[in-house]
Amino acid sequence: MAANLVGEKLAQATAILDELGVDLWMIVARESDVLGDPSLPLVVGTSVTWESFFFISRSGERLAIVGTGDVENIKQTGAWDEIIGYVQGPTTALLDALERFDPRQIALNYAPDNNMADGLTFGMYLKLREMLGKTRFWERIISGEPIASRVRGRKSDEEIRRIRASIATTNEIWEQLEEWIRPGASEREIAEFMHEQLNRRGLSSAWDWNYCPSVTAGPNSPIGHAGPADVTLERGQLLSLDFGVLQDEYCSDMQRTFYLLAEGETEAPAPVERGFRIISGIIRAAADALKPGVAGWEVDQVCREAFAREGITEWGFALGHQMGRSVHDGGTLLGPRWERYGRQPYGIVEENEVYTLEIGMTVPGYGWLSLEDDVVVTANGCEFLCEPQTKPILIG
Amino acid sequence: MAANLVGEKLAQATAILDELGVDLWMIVARESDVLGDPSLPLVVGTSVTWESFFFISRSGERLAIVGTGDVENIKQTGAWDEIIGYVQGPTTALLDALERFDPRQIALNYAPDNNMADGLTFGMYLKLREMLGKTRFWERIISGEPIASRVRGRKSDEEIRRIRASIATTNEIWEQLEEWIRPGASEREIAEFMHEQLNRRGLSSAWDWNYCPSVTAGPNSPIGHAGPADVTLERGQLLSLDFGVLQDEYCSDMQRTFYLLAEGETEAPAPVERGFRIISGIIRAAADALKPGVAGWEVDQVCREAFAREGITEWGFALGHQMGRSVHDGGTLLGPRWERYGRQPYGIVEENEVYTLEIGMTVPGYGWLSLEDDVVVTANGCEFLCEPQTKPILIG
Repeated sequence: MAANLVGEKLAQATAILDELGVDLWMIVARESDVLGDPSLPLVVGTSVTWESFFFISRSGERLAIVGTGDVENIKQTGAWDEIIGYVQGPTTALLDALERFDPRQIALNYAPDNNMADGLTFGMYLKLREMLGKTRFWERIISGEPIASRVRGRKSDEEIRRIRASIATTNEIWEQLEEWIRPGASEREIAEFMHEQLNRRGLSSAWDWNYCPSVTAGPNSPIGHAGPADVTLERGQLLSLDFGVLQDEYCSDMQRTFYLLAEGETEAPAPVERGFRIISGIIRAAADALKPGVAGWEVDQVCREAFAREGITEWGFALGHQMGRSVHDGGTLLGPRWERYGRQPYGIVEENEVYTLEIGMTVPGYGWLSLEDDVVVTANGCEFLCEPQTKPILIG
Repeated sequence: MAANLVGEKLAQATAILDELGVDLWMIVARESDVLGDPSLPLVVGTSVTWESFFFISRSGERLAIVGTGDVENIKQTGAWDEIIGYVQGPTTALLDALERFDPRQIALNYAPDNNMADGLTFGMYLKLREMLGKTRFWERIISGEPIASRVRGRKSDEEIRRIRASIATTNEIWEQLEEWIRPGASEREIAEFMHEQLNRRGLSSAWDWNYCPSVTAGPNSPIGHAGPADVTLERGQLLSLDFGVLQDEYCSDMQRTFYLLAEGETEAPAPVERGFRIISGIIRAAADALKPGVAGWEVDQVCREAFAREGITEWGFALGHQMGRSVHDGGTLLGPRWERYGRQPYGIVEENEVYTLEIGMTVPGYGWLSLEDDVVVTANGCEFLCEPQTKPILIG
């Protein structure tokens, strides 16, 4: 990651600490290639092997305590000016640093309801308790959720630029698919075609390769985070894909639905057209409701009310999630107040957050119709980062 | 991952539960693409989005409780026959399942000293406490470390086959490098050459791309997990690389050292030859000491004593770590009893564990000389998975 992006995010973190009145954000990590705090790539910009402690203070100081073998690696990010390397163990350096900073609060990344702010493992928590449990610092520990969540959610200019670029690539791939797709292709072949597009560009999928894309062809295919099956696409059926790319460390996440014209048809049949009107209409209405200051669940509510009004099956997922470095970028969720989503739907939408808006419905006899667009929240509303799909993409 | 590998590991897990007398191993995960329990790829074989609970019982039962959108995905692994999908939240299904299994112990993956067995986040722990704190199950929770650690450490036949294949590829790449390397190449160019070899084969690096390989050219380069610098390799210098590939989901991790003959030289100078005798001799001695039943630190001790005997600077790292699906595969470590390594050096070596053996020393005026070989523990000792390097690879 470019040092300037880490620099942007670190500056943001300091401003957020000030806004929240918190003295110190301490990120703890080890073997981060395997299991690393999700904030690490944003504000540290590299991985670590040994137990590491990153101090970001309200006054703008930045200190890293890392195993000696990681020192060069942190140095090369260019974002951390004070780096303490240890050989035998970190406790002494950690205690010295806490004495020096003497923060009134120490924010750690744990959050029952927000995986993106929940990077501290339980074992590391127990270890911290061993190190600090008898010091005055232990009672100063608070959850870093509001910090991690804001640093992640509020996209910088560079982050939005990268997301736009990922979406542009995704649009290119949709066009390639439109040219290539034909009756008789199996879901598996369609997924292989999409993977080939990624490979050719040297890109990764935005989520698990095995179900990115997820492909739903016609009325006989399972829906959800499922890998593609041997189901074959036929004329007179809908084809829906959920797909995103990871490019330059940032994601896109879109759903597009195609209709394969039956013999003699020149346009999609009425039930399909009606489905597109309903689904794209709801996405439009949700976008109209999305602006700084509303709660996530209020935007989701728009979609649930519309489904009830149309008399179709309720949407069993959240209407939208944040997107960025990860495809589910955590924090505020445009979702219903269900147990599964915890506190996330209660979050308040902020400017510069990027969300997906996604819903789908079954069109009986034709298949699964789903749309997903990406938007960025502006000062007074939101802006689409892609051209929203409003009609079926017809395949002759 | 092939269902048969997940099947092998699940069967192993059941046997280990029986060996340890533990009724239930419960793996908890959410958004596992971002931060997933390290045991998940081994015994589940796919990623999940929503809060998920995987039950593996001593009697061989396997139950997954996942969000509805993940059901198909789990089904497609072929390894989980009972899958409960929830829409609003998992608590009811979780409590029902615990009532049904009524386990005497519930092992969860947390471990202060073993990151590979420490997949439960602190936030998820707090959430579990909300769900279970008032039930009789709460006091039955124990650390799953011995289970996670053994399942990870004891490689199955298929796992060892894959590791051998990764090492074979790495050897191919060493040979390519030997042909290509020339005086005047910068560390950065050398790293690019290695990356090109990975790209050409469609492989990933075994650890962070930015410092895999780590490249140390001549006497003026920083050592450790550092990205390559603009330092240029010259005749009469050592070139050391630490490099591994991730192929078919399994790693290699090797260090090789080259010597660029100076004008008129036909062999390496005496100090370089002596360095190779010392370093490769210690690796040989460590391999002789490595067998089931010894503690990790005892093997490491061989290397520390030899360094003291030779009067060279003590090695500032562990002598070796486990390797497999991850390059630092956790559990027992062949390392000194230093705070930084916690309880890991006290672990007891077991058959079928795969370890690296790695040390290095400075040869003043010539550069960094380091070797790293990979071995698998057998019934009575260990077997090298690669041909150990004992002499400099000479570049004319």
